[in-house]
Amino acid sequence: MSQKPAIPKGTRDFIPQEMIRRNYIFDTIKSVFQQYGFLPIETPAMENLSTLMGKYGEEGDKLLFKILDSGDYLKKNTIDEIINVLLNEINFTRDKLQNEILSNKNGDITEDKNKLEKLTEFAVKGIELFNNSKNITLNISEKGLRYDLTVPFARFVVQHQNEITFPFKRYQIQPVWRADRPQKGRYREFYQCDVDVVGSDSLINEVELIQIVDNVFEKLNVEVTIKINNRKILSGIAEIIGEADKIIDITVAIDKLDKIGLEKVNEELSAKGISEKAIAQLQPIINLSGTNVEKIADLKSILSSSTIGQKGIAELEQVFKLSSNLNIQSKIELDLTLARGLNYYTGAIFEVKANHVEMGSICGGGRYDDLTGIFGLKDVSGVGISFGADRIYDVLQQLNRFQSQNLNNVKLMFANFGELETVYCMKMLEKVRKAGINAELYPDAAKMKKQFSYADSKEIKFVAIVGENEMQVNKVSLKNMTTGEQKTLSVEEMIEVLKNN
Amino acid sequence: MSQKPAIPKGTRDFIPQEMIRRNYIFDTIKSVFQQYGFLPIETPAMENLSTLMGKYGEEGDKLLFKILDSGDYLKKNTIDEIINVLLNEINFTRDKLQNEILSNKNGDITEDKNKLEKLTEFAVKGIELFNNSKNITLNISEKGLRYDLTVPFARFVVQHQNEITFPFKRYQIQPVWRADRPQKGRYREFYQCDVDVVGSDSLINEVELIQIVDNVFEKLNVEVTIKINNRKILSGIAEIIGEADKIIDITVAIDKLDKIGLEKVNEELSAKGISEKAIAQLQPIINLSGTNVEKIADLKSILSSSTIGQKGIAELEQVFKLSSNLNIQSKIELDLTLARGLNYYTGAIFEVKANHVEMGSICGGGRYDDLTGIFGLKDVSGVGISFGADRIYDVLQQLNRFQSQNLNNVKLMFANFGELETVYCMKMLEKVRKAGINAELYPDAAKMKKQFSYADSKEIKFVAIVGENEMQVNKVSLKNMTTGEQKTLSVEEMIEVLKNN
Repeated sequence: MSQKPAIPKGTRDFIPQEMIRRNYIFDTIKSVFQQYGFLPIETPAMENLSTLMGKYGEEGDKLLFKILDSGDYLKKNTIDEIINVLLNEINFTRDKLQNEILSNKNGDITEDKNKLEKLTEFAVKGIELFNNSKNITLNISEKGLRYDLTVPFARFVVQHQNEITFPFKRYQIQPVWRADRPQKGRYREFYQCDVDVVGSDSLINEVELIQIVDNVFEKLNVEVTIKINNRKILSGIAEIIGEADKIIDITVAIDKLDKIGLEKVNEELSAKGISEKAIAQLQPIINLSGTNVEKIADLKSILSSSTIGQKGIAELEQVFKLSSNLNIQSKIELDLTLARGLNYYTGAIFEVKANHVEMGSICGGGRYDDLTGIFGLKDVSGVGISFGADRIYDVLQQLNRFQSQNLNNVKLMFANFGELETVYCMKMLEKVRKAGINAELYPDAAKMKKQFSYADSKEIKFVAIVGENEMQVNKVSLKNMTTGEQKTLSVEEMIEVLKNN
Repeated sequence: MSQKPAIPKGTRDFIPQEMIRRNYIFDTIKSVFQQYGFLPIETPAMENLSTLMGKYGEEGDKLLFKILDSGDYLKKNTIDEIINVLLNEINFTRDKLQNEILSNKNGDITEDKNKLEKLTEFAVKGIELFNNSKNITLNISEKGLRYDLTVPFARFVVQHQNEITFPFKRYQIQPVWRADRPQKGRYREFYQCDVDVVGSDSLINEVELIQIVDNVFEKLNVEVTIKINNRKILSGIAEIIGEADKIIDITVAIDKLDKIGLEKVNEELSAKGISEKAIAQLQPIINLSGTNVEKIADLKSILSSSTIGQKGIAELEQVFKLSSNLNIQSKIELDLTLARGLNYYTGAIFEVKANHVEMGSICGGGRYDDLTGIFGLKDVSGVGISFGADRIYDVLQQLNRFQSQNLNNVKLMFANFGELETVYCMKMLEKVRKAGINAELYPDAAKMKKQFSYADSKEIKFVAIVGENEMQVNKVSLKNMTTGEQKTLSVEEMIEVLKNN
């Protein structure tokens, strides 16, 4: 009997066609990260649970995948521990009952004691039955699969602080695992692509992250809007209206302006317990519009009395100023409703959306001032951004932006006509590959139809045909699979054609 | 209180310096795989335990890491199940005891029954106490981390047989996990790089795998010896000496010839229960020497009576013949002691060793005729080879073959002299990066000593200095960090220097 092959729910296999497209995205992102001086690191898939627990809120703890060593799993330590607890309970029960019997009876208690012993014996037998049960095993897990790349990165920075140099510019592209309920577009295993600088307060880092986003999507041929906000501005707003603890409610409500209109936004603010006075003070903020420069001018006057608000505006202004000096294609948009993991971020907040397509944000990030504190390294400021590979894939797919010339496919297949031709083709193949071209020889002398359909399925653009005629003149017939055109060429001429197509 | 950061035993973090070297190895291997028409796939880190269990022997099953969903882990299903078992036992005990009381007593049993109820109540309370215990949790695992890439690949081929085209040429570079006892050079998480063709019997595939190995190590600048054997020849030897079941003992003993000499080898064969007659027949095989051609000539006569042996020789001869036609640098050596996972392989067996360095094999593989059978797809022959990235890393390290020009480091750092210079440098940086050069600007206007030591630690070869003088003439002073040489250049001139260094 053979098993029906399957994989755990919420996980995916990637067939070559998907992998080639995914690698195109990853390679593009990586090459830009590297151009900006970011270096790769990797951390293990498993982290100690003490590293992971309590870092993602109560909900996050529940979504951790925990790991058992198979060895530990079969060890009886934990089972023995539970058995001991149960046996103690039974003994405790017996002693208590014996005392009751003693205190209620004046005469002979032998019979009662015998009964009691018998009952205890039965109870112990029950426990043994449980102990021998093969279907139930017990364990305690000490390891978990990483839930994101941020916490492992913080752990890494602290653990390796003497091996790395600050400011530390790293990127990390690895899968993460979440025991989320699987649903469309949400997986239990997915890649994150994070890029961060830690140990530098400079706003140049914020600007470079904007450049990185811009460069990546220019290379991927996708127009994006880079939304930016600053946590200090949000704090300033909360400060001037006297509702510091309601800042999330406020941003959530303001975010709905386009959808539900000003009146409904104000109703929602009121329902959330924001005072009438505060709502009145919020009106110019909700109605903030125009260019970034106009918005900043308005904010400057609105937040004139808030020191922290002014600091946030100054940071944003500096980022805009440095950016405007550079050749950035994407639209950069100040968006006060951008909050994200608010408790986490302390300065800039970023989010990136693809234009011309309905899709959630494809990148997100910001500045945080104490990521490594929990692992014992205080006062290390960092700023970073994360690229959502799955969503970027979907955007490219929807906009039809996967272009064959960017994908690392096989370019040429030699058809196989038999042993003699094989020897000849393998010599030619050496030259083609030496020229850096991905090429193959169909391994069996199968029917031509089968060989051509193989080439089609691999999206191979050219098929080389070498028969007796070609061998006699030391040439090759090259068939363009798209146009159907066929030419007889020398190996060198063929290599030129392949390089230019 | 902060936690001391640590990772699970047997796992590793990779700092940038290591990652750059590792990526150089992976990228080299990948580029060669692609040149031969192999395409990437990926499978999930987790597989169903039903896919993994029983595929790696009893020992392998013990080395699987098993996974719990945290959700499941906290779910009370399993705990409830156990509690039910226990409560049933208690009820069973109570009923039994009640029957005993009834059968022994003729009078009023109310008091006894009351006592019994009380005791039952206490027992149930004990169970509840256990149930509420926070430190003990229970679960059943249904998933495990992949142990190698071979079994997931077999599962993948069967599961996606209608989406892929045969012959299916795939490569896969992903980590695997084994709950082995950690020791020097043995990790609980490590990468495998596998390349396989399934669905083709052609010996061209064997030859291409040899070419791939040769190309990879030529690119990595390491001389290797490719050892090859054929399972059918081993079967032939076992057949002619009448000791088919002792083939592993025989190859293990013959393997020791260089170390312990012929006499001791024969003693060992005798100790393993090989008959005197068989040992006598083995002498020409043990003493087999000379070139591959000479060895094959000898084998042909020794195995003349074995059909399967002759088939193995013919296969090997064909592989040698096709290879000799090609430009293969590595030594290819017929090695009859090569057995590896003997039960697994059915044709060619490969192993690769690095010359001039003491190290186990760095690649291994062979042909197998029924990998996918267990998942329901019969008669699919495959052949493949696996590259051991960690050992290859150690070989390159020991032979000092990591050359900076091959490593994707940052090439240029602009020193940071302050805000005005920053704006100027960022414009220049745009051009440098546009030219495909990895470069960065130190983000803070820190002391020069600190900035230069940062450049050193990142092995950055050039530092660009832009002060007032340089800005006035629209130039940059470029310092070569290795030679100390400094030149004043235009951006375009600088880019030329960087491209050529």
